[in-house]
Amino acid sequence: MTQRYKATIEYDGTGLVGWQRQENGPSVQQYIEEALHQLTQENTVIQGSGRTDAGVHARGQVAHFDIEKPFEPYKLQQGMNFYLQDAAVAVLDVEPVHAEFNARFDATQRVYEYHIINRSAPLSLDRERAWHVHVSLESDAMYEAAQHLVGKHDFTSFRASECQAKTALRTIDYINLDRDQERIVITVAARSFLHHMVRNIVGTLHQVGVKKWAPEHVKKILEEQDRKMAGPTAPACGLYLTEIHY
Amino acid sequence: MTQRYKATIEYDGTGLVGWQRQENGPSVQQYIEEALHQLTQENTVIQGSGRTDAGVHARGQVAHFDIEKPFEPYKLQQGMNFYLQDAAVAVLDVEPVHAEFNARFDATQRVYEYHIINRSAPLSLDRERAWHVHVSLESDAMYEAAQHLVGKHDFTSFRASECQAKTALRTIDYINLDRDQERIVITVAARSFLHHMVRNIVGTLHQVGVKKWAPEHVKKILEEQDRKMAGPTAPACGLYLTEIHY
Repeated sequence: MTQRYKATIEYDGTGLVGWQRQENGPSVQQYIEEALHQLTQENTVIQGSGRTDAGVHARGQVAHFDIEKPFEPYKLQQGMNFYLQDAAVAVLDVEPVHAEFNARFDATQRVYEYHIINRSAPLSLDRERAWHVHVSLESDAMYEAAQHLVGKHDFTSFRASECQAKTALRTIDYINLDRDQERIVITVAARSFLHHMVRNIVGTLHQVGVKKWAPEHVKKILEEQDRKMAGPTAPACGLYLTEIHY
Repeated sequence: MTQRYKATIEYDGTGLVGWQRQENGPSVQQYIEEALHQLTQENTVIQGSGRTDAGVHARGQVAHFDIEKPFEPYKLQQGMNFYLQDAAVAVLDVEPVHAEFNARFDATQRVYEYHIINRSAPLSLDRERAWHVHVSLESDAMYEAAQHLVGKHDFTSFRASECQAKTALRTIDYINLDRDQERIVITVAARSFLHHMVRNIVGTLHQVGVKKWAPEHVKKILEEQDRKMAGPTAPACGLYLTEIHY
């Protein structure tokens, strides 16, 4: 009897083409589907809560999949991790869910963290794990700017040109900014995001942080509904998908 | 005129043979001396606050060295980092110091952090950056055990057999333990340490954490002055040299 499972997944996105299977390199989806195939001999397609780009990390990506063969959830998790040991992908949790559970469409909130290391010296331990910003950032101004984005808005100005969503209307639940010496962590939560939306928000807050724009300018960027108004896309390596709520 | 400088250094110890130059692979010392040579054309030997083993990381190693050619400290730092860009070594700060300053002998306190990830799933983002402990750890008991080690003691039981120090008497200023969900960070501060002392302490606290030993047993381990009494040496990859005070 087919059983649907919900898996919580962590990965180091460095060197991966992203979540989704692609021709040009290894993806998280491919690693997990291959691990499931080795474990069960079934051909299983997994559905993630959403794609992440090449180089983006996850502490709590969620995916669902169906397996015919009966498994205890913990054994399934262990078996997947056994076959994933050469990949920088770890299954943190597996639980049985009802057959209608959908990792993508049932999500009520997605939470991303964006990590910046703000210092002149290059990175060693945080290389590929954070965005290295040399110029001193005014993090209070960045936080103030971010608050203009909270709530329901048309996020056309923060949307990648390749974005396929029908509408640019999204609701940001909150944006936090924590600074601990040189490390700045920006947390953004919303039910769903447009393509590159978090990275475009961070690239815009960066422009505020270096005092190119006043915090209030972000309101104008939103209103203009023009991608050219906002800042450049922040690098993938600073972004972490941390939590999905259902 | 020769000027002595104090440099603060960060490194990812993965793949390095450690701080000190060795025949069998790249060391932090070699990388920095080569960078200084490329920058100044002088043959400079640097002196660190102490060695770190292969795989051990640093957020705040300190070293001193002498340069003939005049340099602004910030330019010296930038130049070193330019020649270090292919190494996972970053110079965080350079300041001129008096000719008698000694990074090793003038240190009044060294602070190490040891990172444990306590969960069943393997590591992805924290691979080579923390010790992965599967079995659930009683961190309160570990903290209690650690307090028996604070103060001046003979640490023979926590000393590597290759340790060359004349005496095993050391004074631990404090041991903290912070737990944030699956991450346990143990911070140990002392004027100086014996070889493998922090890793042997952590390996011993681990035995308390898995309830093999009661916290009070650590007192007995100290008193016996016998390396065989204490726990195994914890892996290098969890250890970070974080601060040196002068």
